[in-house]
Amino acid sequence: MSRIGLIAGSGRFPLYFALAAKQSGSEVVAVAIREETSPELEKHVSQIHWFHVGELQNMIDTFKNAGVNRMVMAGKITKTLIFDKIHPDRRLLEVFKKIPNLNDDILLRQLSEEFISEGIEVCDSTTYLSVLLPEKGILTKRKPSDDEMGEIEYGLTIARKIAEMDIGQAVIVKNKVVLAVEAIEGTDKAILRGGELGQGDVVVVKVARPKQDMRYDIPTIGVDTIGILKQARAKCLAFEAQRTLLLDKEEVTRLADEAGIAIMVI
Amino acid sequence: MSRIGLIAGSGRFPLYFALAAKQSGSEVVAVAIREETSPELEKHVSQIHWFHVGELQNMIDTFKNAGVNRMVMAGKITKTLIFDKIHPDRRLLEVFKKIPNLNDDILLRQLSEEFISEGIEVCDSTTYLSVLLPEKGILTKRKPSDDEMGEIEYGLTIARKIAEMDIGQAVIVKNKVVLAVEAIEGTDKAILRGGELGQGDVVVVKVARPKQDMRYDIPTIGVDTIGILKQARAKCLAFEAQRTLLLDKEEVTRLADEAGIAIMVI
Repeated sequence: MSRIGLIAGSGRFPLYFALAAKQSGSEVVAVAIREETSPELEKHVSQIHWFHVGELQNMIDTFKNAGVNRMVMAGKITKTLIFDKIHPDRRLLEVFKKIPNLNDDILLRQLSEEFISEGIEVCDSTTYLSVLLPEKGILTKRKPSDDEMGEIEYGLTIARKIAEMDIGQAVIVKNKVVLAVEAIEGTDKAILRGGELGQGDVVVVKVARPKQDMRYDIPTIGVDTIGILKQARAKCLAFEAQRTLLLDKEEVTRLADEAGIAIMVI
Repeated sequence: MSRIGLIAGSGRFPLYFALAAKQSGSEVVAVAIREETSPELEKHVSQIHWFHVGELQNMIDTFKNAGVNRMVMAGKITKTLIFDKIHPDRRLLEVFKKIPNLNDDILLRQLSEEFISEGIEVCDSTTYLSVLLPEKGILTKRKPSDDEMGEIEYGLTIARKIAEMDIGQAVIVKNKVVLAVEAIEGTDKAILRGGELGQGDVVVVKVARPKQDMRYDIPTIGVDTIGILKQARAKCLAFEAQRTLLLDKEEVTRLADEAGIAIMVI
């Protein structure tokens, strides 16, 4: 039986990965992050080892001891933890020294290098999940109106530039004004801020990075996203085809339809 | 005695304008915004007329009745009011119809056109205030460290691109990561958010628009800015020479020195 390592961040993405890997006949050795990972993951993997977010060396050693030679990263690890009370171990401190800044791309790439240098290949996190990368099209019963299409196009232009600068992946617009730009606070908080500033009826556009590395930090849409959109009184969501993971598609679509939110995969 | 109209937004900028105009021998006819203008302005102008933010026609008529043929706009008018409970009059609704979107630049330009079309010239809001546009240099006792200089340069690159897209004028950075980007929430809220996300020691960079029109919405730094920087535990502020109004320079510098904040005019 083939064996694959999983560094599991928050949310349901690691669960989906573990289930899909198991169904494909792979044994999953999970490294779980105390500050992030859902305990539910325990049920779906052959091994689980819990660490604090800063314990890079222990994570590497765990995979090596388990004879893991390929791995994926799935689920978000909150970057603000880096600035918070978490103590990076010596190995992680060395990573920080090697990189010019802590932008997502650079940090994740260097973290991958650490595993690769130990003989552990870092695979696309969508390896068993290509069915969850949606095609272009409209998911909901309600299509975006002409006005909304204008907002989506405007938001898309801005979001792509923001992503290109590695600031964030989402913008919230209304009347072709940028209400909020996501930086490190994360998409959910940016959506809520935009919704409040725009007093609802906002349009959310989320994109992948221009050169999205499918090995990590894939934009993900799920049931929680719809909850946030409803709270922000958003009327429309657009995200990129083939480069966004859509979890629980049926439930997401049902909830969006119920709330009158139009979802467009662009 | 020459007569000049003043549309007075929030903060101390309108007060400074009124004082400087009076000292230069000009009589100031002020249009004050109930939602924004400090009542203190009353003491420094020959006439003051109070309106709600949506009453564009009344503002125009006031200037015409007072024989005003040149005017300035000074002080911020909160753009979120547009999305809020304020009812635009017919004249303002027409302005909205004339423009493709509500970006600051486009909106302010069209608003100016309305006054110009009625024979009222819109002058630089720095007309009597050139002494408040600082030169390049370091204002505080503490100079930015080499690390801080790196952060300022990084932030400046990003802030200029953000300003170019007419999203906002400020970014908050730390470790060469963009913590927060100002959109329509305004600079103060963006600084506070960035400070919280970065857990202090953040660097704030504020720029003018690439083609800053000195007639309106000049970036302004004052005593309040330092209060916000302290609250966000910022260690450094940089803003653009000649295109930023620095109010109460002595007091700003004293407060920054007291807080150990380095201020650089770039």
